[in-house]
Amino acid sequence: MKHALKMCQWDEQDIMELIKLAKQMEEGSYENRRKQPYVVANLFYEPSTRTKSSFEMAQVKLGYKRIPFDVAHSSVQKGESLYDTVKTFEAIGVDALVIRHEQENYYKEWIDQVTIPIINGGDGCGQHPTQSLLDLYTIYESFGSFKGLKVGIAGDLRHSRVARSNVEILHRLGATIILASPEEWKDESLMQYGEYCSMDELCEVVDVLMLLRVQRERHVEQMHSNQANYLEVFGLTERRMSFLKRESIIMHPAPINRGVEIADQLVEHPKSRIFTQMKNGVFVRMALHEKIRLGGWK
Amino acid sequence: MKHALKMCQWDEQDIMELIKLAKQMEEGSYENRRKQPYVVANLFYEPSTRTKSSFEMAQVKLGYKRIPFDVAHSSVQKGESLYDTVKTFEAIGVDALVIRHEQENYYKEWIDQVTIPIINGGDGCGQHPTQSLLDLYTIYESFGSFKGLKVGIAGDLRHSRVARSNVEILHRLGATIILASPEEWKDESLMQYGEYCSMDELCEVVDVLMLLRVQRERHVEQMHSNQANYLEVFGLTERRMSFLKRESIIMHPAPINRGVEIADQLVEHPKSRIFTQMKNGVFVRMALHEKIRLGGWK
Amino acid sequence: MKHALKMCQWDEQDIMELIKLAKQMEEGSYENRRKQPYVVANLFYEPSTRTKSSFEMAQVKLGYKRIPFDVAHSSVQKGESLYDTVKTFEAIGVDALVIRHEQENYYKEWIDQVTIPIINGGDGCGQHPTQSLLDLYTIYESFGSFKGLKVGIAGDLRHSRVARSNVEILHRLGATIILASPEEWKDESLMQYGEYCSMDELCEVVDVLMLLRVQRERHVEQMHSNQANYLEVFGLTERRMSFLKRESIIMHPAPINRGVEIADQLVEHPKSRIFTQMKNGVFVRMALHEKIRLGGWK
Repeated sequence: MKHALKMCQWDEQDIMELIKLAKQMEEGSYENRRKQPYVVANLFYEPSTRTKSSFEMAQVKLGYKRIPFDVAHSSVQKGESLYDTVKTFEAIGVDALVIRHEQENYYKEWIDQVTIPIINGGDGCGQHPTQSLLDLYTIYESFGSFKGLKVGIAGDLRHSRVARSNVEILHRLGATIILASPEEWKDESLMQYGEYCSMDELCEVVDVLMLLRVQRERHVEQMHSNQANYLEVFGLTERRMSFLKRESIIMHPAPINRGVEIADQLVEHPKSRIFTQMKNGVFVRMALHEKIRLGGWK
Repeated sequence: MKHALKMCQWDEQDIMELIKLAKQMEEGSYENRRKQPYVVANLFYEPSTRTKSSFEMAQVKLGYKRIPFDVAHSSVQKGESLYDTVKTFEAIGVDALVIRHEQENYYKEWIDQVTIPIINGGDGCGQHPTQSLLDLYTIYESFGSFKGLKVGIAGDLRHSRVARSNVEILHRLGATIILASPEEWKDESLMQYGEYCSMDELCEVVDVLMLLRVQRERHVEQMHSNQANYLEVFGLTERRMSFLKRESIIMHPAPINRGVEIADQLVEHPKSRIFTQMKNGVFVRMALHEKIRLGGWK
Repeated sequence: MKHALKMCQWDEQDIMELIKLAKQMEEGSYENRRKQPYVVANLFYEPSTRTKSSFEMAQVKLGYKRIPFDVAHSSVQKGESLYDTVKTFEAIGVDALVIRHEQENYYKEWIDQVTIPIINGGDGCGQHPTQSLLDLYTIYESFGSFKGLKVGIAGDLRHSRVARSNVEILHRLGATIILASPEEWKDESLMQYGEYCSMDELCEVVDVLMLLRVQRERHVEQMHSNQANYLEVFGLTERRMSFLKRESIIMHPAPINRGVEIADQLVEHPKSRIFTQMKNGVFVRMALHEKIRLGGWK
């Protein structure tokens, strides 16, 4: 497979190989032997700072060339479909595409008709595989293994592509999943991987606390009645911080709603890996880009 | 002349020279001996995917440097004129500008006061010379000559800068032009180059069928009363496909309104050169850029 | 100090060093010995053509790599703060940031928590140090000194960050400041540096006439009652042009409102340095970038 679409496409060995390649990227020990110019385009149909900049940085570091694309000034404004846009970039000779699109499984209908690799930068409420990879890399960096780790995921589970991508792979890699979520945002499909409990209970037992962003832009239905109190009920407060185990770490995919998912002053707490996750994102994206450039997976 | 503004600026020899240079670009046999960095900016005042990306790709392949420009975040928002914007890029040292603007002949008032070359990426309902060049290149690639070729152009002739650019040059290169268009979109000025006939008749005789995009964004007046039936009356259906000659080819400048100008399933038919046109666009733009960088025309 | 935030951070020696470095950039005599790739991002929260393009050109000429950023398609749309955006770019490994933001002193709250250098591309009605530097460079180029020069600044003094930056530094470098402004736009804080007089009087005595842009987008209060007559009362007309001294020069930060601050036909008058200022902007920004890359100031 030449694409990177969802976490379930990789087995444990594939994941560990990507983590090791990312490590080489971080250490600067990877040797880039590319002779031909390699040209990519980043098609972001949804807003992004971190994911897009991180891909751009990865591409800069690998010496790739980039063709800019801005939905608002593209032929999407004349009604052009995603498929025709993708085929256009293929036709002009782009070597790979990174795509973020609001539609879940946006690639499903046409992926077999495209000859260049597609890297999924997020598909609606579906998956966000490079976020998962950087989360895995960050956890691995802290604990050296996934087996037996207790990972708590808290917040808007139903709308989170980050949660969806992570829960399945962490379970597969041997971690124990614990979930905490407002009633309205629980996702039944995740119950096969872990149990729901209160935020207090979750904080007491986890090695890794993954906070999810309250995605105001993605759901129109009434938010949890305790929105004003979200921080108190499902956020990381100073009080809950005191419950956390000595070696535990805190993660968040960002952007952070400061004072909602986490108390403002805890964002840069020593336990927080939030900015480390961003740093690591560059290395896993470099690894993924190179793995794909060199042929992908069987 | 150092600019590329309209097709009529080139004689047959100029065109053939550009086609041959583009061929070298496609074959990779062109040697780029540039020593100085060459910096361009692409000023697109109208949406574009193909033309802009194709220019960017040509520039990447030639090793040019690019200064980004986005109308929505520029001083155009503070009321700055196109002329002052152009002079600004000249002042900061840009070597050439590609401009797409909604105003026909946008360059007319000030072209003589600008010292750097301007490449026209489309001027309102005026011309779109690089689209014409890639169309010519695509036709030449299929038939090896223009003389005696029957080229049918069908659709929104009145609002199409593609049609305007193509009809005159194809006539000049020895092709026979045939036109088909809804009554409201006929353009009398084109009648000196070719005759109007029905879409069925046109399909039966042409070597090249050029479909034009229905430009919904460009005309406010009532569209052809048969809009719902546009495909039936002026589009390429399976039925009309069966009329086409064995060696004939189908072209469209894109973006395509699938199911309007052409039946969805015919877009990637073996006769279709639609994605080939996009591919070729990169080579003719490379050729044009280099010809201009090296001094342009007498 | 590793940042470039406001003019008052530099003493006369710092300024002269930057001017000399910019001269080397203009002459091509500067030798760039950088070995590592150097990556910057330009975060423009307000529209810009000149400043942004000029920074981009400076970065291109220095061989820096650039990570694109567009507020409208960034996580700013999800409510992300400027601080978190800055920390994100720091985390992904950007070496320096150029920021333009509508809030005066946007950097004040967090500048000490950021490890990478920030270059101020304009902060609301605050300062615009690189504009000041290019103005100083342009004046120095014409007169070889600042001492004793009579500099007249005319127009919307209250809302102009260009005026604010320039008045103080020119005063400090030994120039005499003269001001002319509609009553509503006078700025009392500037009176310690120079006296207000009529536009006619000002034109008769100055060596340098700096016109300021009427910033329609920045103030909602009623504009000067004579708006229609702004050119007559505070603009540069043919009549006032005849008052100017032989060796005097005319400056304007642009974008120009032609026919408002200056008569249309005078914009490219031999005395005008308006496009020269744009050209010089590239050299001073190259100088500033390199000075900062190499460590900044004590």
